[in-house]
Amino acid sequence: MRIPPNMALWKTVGNGTLEGISRVADLDASKLTITLSKTLKPIPHHETMMFGNIMSDHMLVAEFDPEIGWSSPEIKPRGPLSIDPASSCVQYGTTVFEGMKAYIGPDGEPRLFRPDMNMARLARSAERMALPPFNTDQVLALIKQLIIVDRRWIPLFSGYSLYVRPTITGTQIGFSVGASDHATLCIMLSPGGPYFRSNAKPTSVLAVSETVRAWPGGTGGHKVALNYSAGFLPLRAAQKQGYDQVLWLLGDDMKVTEAGAMNVFVVVARDDGDIDLLTPPLDGTILPGVTRDSVLALAKAHTAGETTLPGLEIQNSQRVRLHAQERSFTMAEMVQWSTEGKILEAFGAGTAVVIASIGKIGWKGEDLDLPVHEGGLGPIAKALRTRILDIQEGREIWKNWSILVTDL
Amino acid sequence: MRIPPNMALWKTVGNGTLEGISRVADLDASKLTITLSKTLKPIPHHETMMFGNIMSDHMLVAEFDPEIGWSSPEIKPRGPLSIDPASSCVQYGTTVFEGMKAYIGPDGEPRLFRPDMNMARLARSAERMALPPFNTDQVLALIKQLIIVDRRWIPLFSGYSLYVRPTITGTQIGFSVGASDHATLCIMLSPGGPYFRSNAKPTSVLAVSETVRAWPGGTGGHKVALNYSAGFLPLRAAQKQGYDQVLWLLGDDMKVTEAGAMNVFVVVARDDGDIDLLTPPLDGTILPGVTRDSVLALAKAHTAGETTLPGLEIQNSQRVRLHAQERSFTMAEMVQWSTEGKILEAFGAGTAVVIASIGKIGWKGEDLDLPVHEGGLGPIAKALRTRILDIQEGREIWKNWSILVTDL
Repeated sequence: MRIPPNMALWKTVGNGTLEGISRVADLDASKLTITLSKTLKPIPHHETMMFGNIMSDHMLVAEFDPEIGWSSPEIKPRGPLSIDPASSCVQYGTTVFEGMKAYIGPDGEPRLFRPDMNMARLARSAERMALPPFNTDQVLALIKQLIIVDRRWIPLFSGYSLYVRPTITGTQIGFSVGASDHATLCIMLSPGGPYFRSNAKPTSVLAVSETVRAWPGGTGGHKVALNYSAGFLPLRAAQKQGYDQVLWLLGDDMKVTEAGAMNVFVVVARDDGDIDLLTPPLDGTILPGVTRDSVLALAKAHTAGETTLPGLEIQNSQRVRLHAQERSFTMAEMVQWSTEGKILEAFGAGTAVVIASIGKIGWKGEDLDLPVHEGGLGPIAKALRTRILDIQEGREIWKNWSILVTDL
Repeated sequence: MRIPPNMALWKTVGNGTLEGISRVADLDASKLTITLSKTLKPIPHHETMMFGNIMSDHMLVAEFDPEIGWSSPEIKPRGPLSIDPASSCVQYGTTVFEGMKAYIGPDGEPRLFRPDMNMARLARSAERMALPPFNTDQVLALIKQLIIVDRRWIPLFSGYSLYVRPTITGTQIGFSVGASDHATLCIMLSPGGPYFRSNAKPTSVLAVSETVRAWPGGTGGHKVALNYSAGFLPLRAAQKQGYDQVLWLLGDDMKVTEAGAMNVFVVVARDDGDIDLLTPPLDGTILPGVTRDSVLALAKAHTAGETTLPGLEIQNSQRVRLHAQERSFTMAEMVQWSTEGKILEAFGAGTAVVIASIGKIGWKGEDLDLPVHEGGLGPIAKALRTRILDIQEGREIWKNWSILVTDL
């Protein structure tokens, strides 16, 4: 039997029970309706834009009902939703989300960076939270439509962009502990600059082991709301001590994991004159970051001679050889490398921060000081940041990483 | 300087930073306003009440703003709230809550069970989620007021009650990863019966170690939203295999922790003829349940001769001696005790379930069958459940555990 194109086979997700197969509507971008705001907000000066505090004029909303499927998506003026305080998202934190950025290229056209990776991760996150499924191609099409509607909100300054936050949240009403079979997709846009206010100054992190961000068998490898809020109290304590972020450790051996808002990289000098670029592996406790993946891929491409990262052309009459590796390392190793003068750089990578230098790690009441570089970033971090921004902002083509928003 | 009674010294919680002391309004039950619903809903037959799916007519709402403090609380018709989809609770799951129950005593008056324990836990949970502080006496006073308004919703049948769900959730708007300095208190009421539909039939649990509910350094010892949603997918998988709940294990040695909706107890025969009543200790991975605490206290009081639990008067010409102990035990121990015929009973304890017999533990593809007792509950579980319900429903006085709602 042929299924109409806007219908799909879903497993209806009952309250904790798979209740068989029914035929309900899939998310369908062709059914989008647009209700424009009657008054458009003035766009603040870009230097006043802190991360995630200014919202564009519109948002996109679609709702999933297990009997009906996904509603026709709607772009409408941004504002509060009518949400029951007994709903799953408020009571049990059943939210998954993504962080993406839109940029204006030299051709004046809006672009997105590797959105396929975000869409795949969003689908995995939703499955992990037992939320209803959806067609990720349709989500991406809707994101593009929303960006087109609000494209005047994309800042034109390098390092600035329009942050895109697709959110899917459980809206089943009731206190029973189990999966939500109702959900709301909400896509919001927020113009902004660097995550850390002073990008020239290296960030400082406090290494924390008493509280943990994620653990084996947990949700650290997914982009789910619940990975974040447990870190707010330790973050506040760290900020009170003068650090920007928490560096989350794990296990008796104090493995370095990530910093919550960013994946962590360390650049270590090898005895053979080459350079190791290390980041913890995706063992389920680490967010599989898009920027993390891009850093690894670009470093490998550089070393393979497929491209040359800016500033890393020739040093000491030979090409800088970067060995990008996903492997665990501990705070003890960090201290040892630091003592031996082998740590050349440390930096965080993430959609919000892009690449942010780490200048200091608080640890056991002392500070592990890392090399300081003029302008904040060391040569490796700078090369990667420059190249990633060049690709993101459409000045450089690399594989199919940057796509045109207007390609619907 | 004297501070007016309705003002308090708060540390204003900025976005991740303590910004010093300011003077804002505390939660104040004396400022309560009540707007009654124009039409009251019919109360469904009590046998149709599943846990948490029916709501009473009203709810209580108060809001915290860091510049103003807590708003005047309001009782109003229950329904959706206006919640920004960019707010902390939706984006980062910053909700804490409590589960309590109201009963009608033989005197016709509504009662609560040990609400001081819930209030203390609510304050600890809010602190852990970096939410604004509040006066717990005022929260309890507001809970009482709401119960009085909706007292017709308290079922009159033993084992049934009015479930009380105080919720505090972060309502700061923005995507920055950090503490919410805005919050909403919402108290809701839901009449219901036993959490598991058939209380006479023992519940079955599937022991799970691949996914983990809580971890040392995590939030398992607090009543926070994020402890629950990560368990929805494993719960659905367990229910698909025919089990009612997940039994969460932890660590390489597969320690038994809890079942998510309930704490776990096992009754083990000792070589000296006495009985061990074991439950895992509060090491930060276990919810400090009010029913758990009550079970331990009543068992100790029984063995100390301060009271005699019903049905445990005299057996084999001596009093049943229960040794209530908080200590870790593993699945291997459970299997060994079971093989040796030493497990007399296993049960879960929690506000929602009260005491629920566990008849089967799925483990490594097999079932560990536990003793089956007529009517579902073994003699120890039955004694505890009977006594706890007698106290909760006001038929028996024990310490100050049951309090009158009308004592404002």
